[in-house]
Amino acid sequence: MSTAPVSRRARPAKAPLSREVIIETGLRILDRDGLAALTMRRVAQDLDTGAASLYVYVANRDDLMAAMLDHMLGTVPEPTGDTWRDCLTTLVETTVDAMSRYEGLAQVALGAIPTSPNALQIFERLLALLAEGGIDPQTNSWAVDLIYLHISAQAVEQSVCNTKDANEQDYVAEVARCFAELPADRYPMLVAMRAQILAGSGDDRSRWALRALVNGILATPVE
Amino acid sequence: MSTAPVSRRARPAKAPLSREVIIETGLRILDRDGLAALTMRRVAQDLDTGAASLYVYVANRDDLMAAMLDHMLGTVPEPTGDTWRDCLTTLVETTVDAMSRYEGLAQVALGAIPTSPNALQIFERLLALLAEGGIDPQTNSWAVDLIYLHISAQAVEQSVCNTKDANEQDYVAEVARCFAELPADRYPMLVAMRAQILAGSGDDRSRWALRALVNGILATPVE
Repeated sequence: MSTAPVSRRARPAKAPLSREVIIETGLRILDRDGLAALTMRRVAQDLDTGAASLYVYVANRDDLMAAMLDHMLGTVPEPTGDTWRDCLTTLVETTVDAMSRYEGLAQVALGAIPTSPNALQIFERLLALLAEGGIDPQTNSWAVDLIYLHISAQAVEQSVCNTKDANEQDYVAEVARCFAELPADRYPMLVAMRAQILAGSGDDRSRWALRALVNGILATPVE
Repeated sequence: MSTAPVSRRARPAKAPLSREVIIETGLRILDRDGLAALTMRRVAQDLDTGAASLYVYVANRDDLMAAMLDHMLGTVPEPTGDTWRDCLTTLVETTVDAMSRYEGLAQVALGAIPTSPNALQIFERLLALLAEGGIDPQTNSWAVDLIYLHISAQAVEQSVCNTKDANEQDYVAEVARCFAELPADRYPMLVAMRAQILAGSGDDRSRWALRALVNGILATPVE
């Protein structure tokens, strides 16, 4: 490898700055070094520019986080399936995956009413699928809120698991040990139902949860 | 107010350190100055001691956060009500309130299987109430997971709202403006259902959501 100094002129031209380039750089930082590493300064460094230049394109770190989340929601494919329930299942699962792919983005979805273009696109699709399922507009509106909250919560859970140091099996074993030692006088139900509590994979549980959610929505029209 | 120097000897004796005193100090800091202010150093400062002394009682900031969450879960009263569903509603609402009272604690509940004493106590109560509702042990186990995820997500949402600078009414007005400007060709359902989407108070929606959740659990035994 040559260690001879390279003149500024000989270096490749810097990529022009844009909101999109900043978003991609932010995602790369999350991927490599995690949420704690994501500062405006670090993004600027990686783009070989000053932090001040970024503020033309993004207002601040929160704005960048929201933009990265929306970018990821833009990767969710249009759902396919034989029935509206199949499509809904696919849409929920692909959205959870997109939200939880990078550390910290799912948290942004929780607690704010989604108003970014791709979040609204997912809302639009959820509304259309539930309408296809025969759900009236008022129930549908509240139901989509509930499903989006569930998606965000699952995504936070999943992304926290993704970034846990211990692998999932170790973690489950640790929880199993904790449950095995619970005093039966204080926690009689937990002790009696220990086997059921630890049964099933994460996928089995999520799929059951979504079925329960949809069944509940169908059974609970808003009065 | 006297500005004369006070001798060290004349000052009141320091309260003895304990895990409980550290937890209370942490909560006071969250209350006054928010999550960003909560560092081990700041807790030590407020207790007029060195950070090293704290590590005898709490392993690190994450451990302190988990301990503060468990402390808050310990304030949830035993639920009362005429039916198991009434009790469940009360238990869910009081748990959401306890989790969302201080910034940052609800986030701790998301993404970790609860193993702290007071979280397990709430699990125990949820299991007992659903069993009273006639739900079989396997469905009950997964259902309680789903309800706890819902509680945590609602608490995150609520605590983010609590700490938003703008008051809720301003925020809702802003969202209403955003929805009023959506293009009907791109978001036909959202535009057609705008009125329903914005209808109802947060309390109406949460109560409906919990009813839907419980109805869904009742309608969806784990096969």
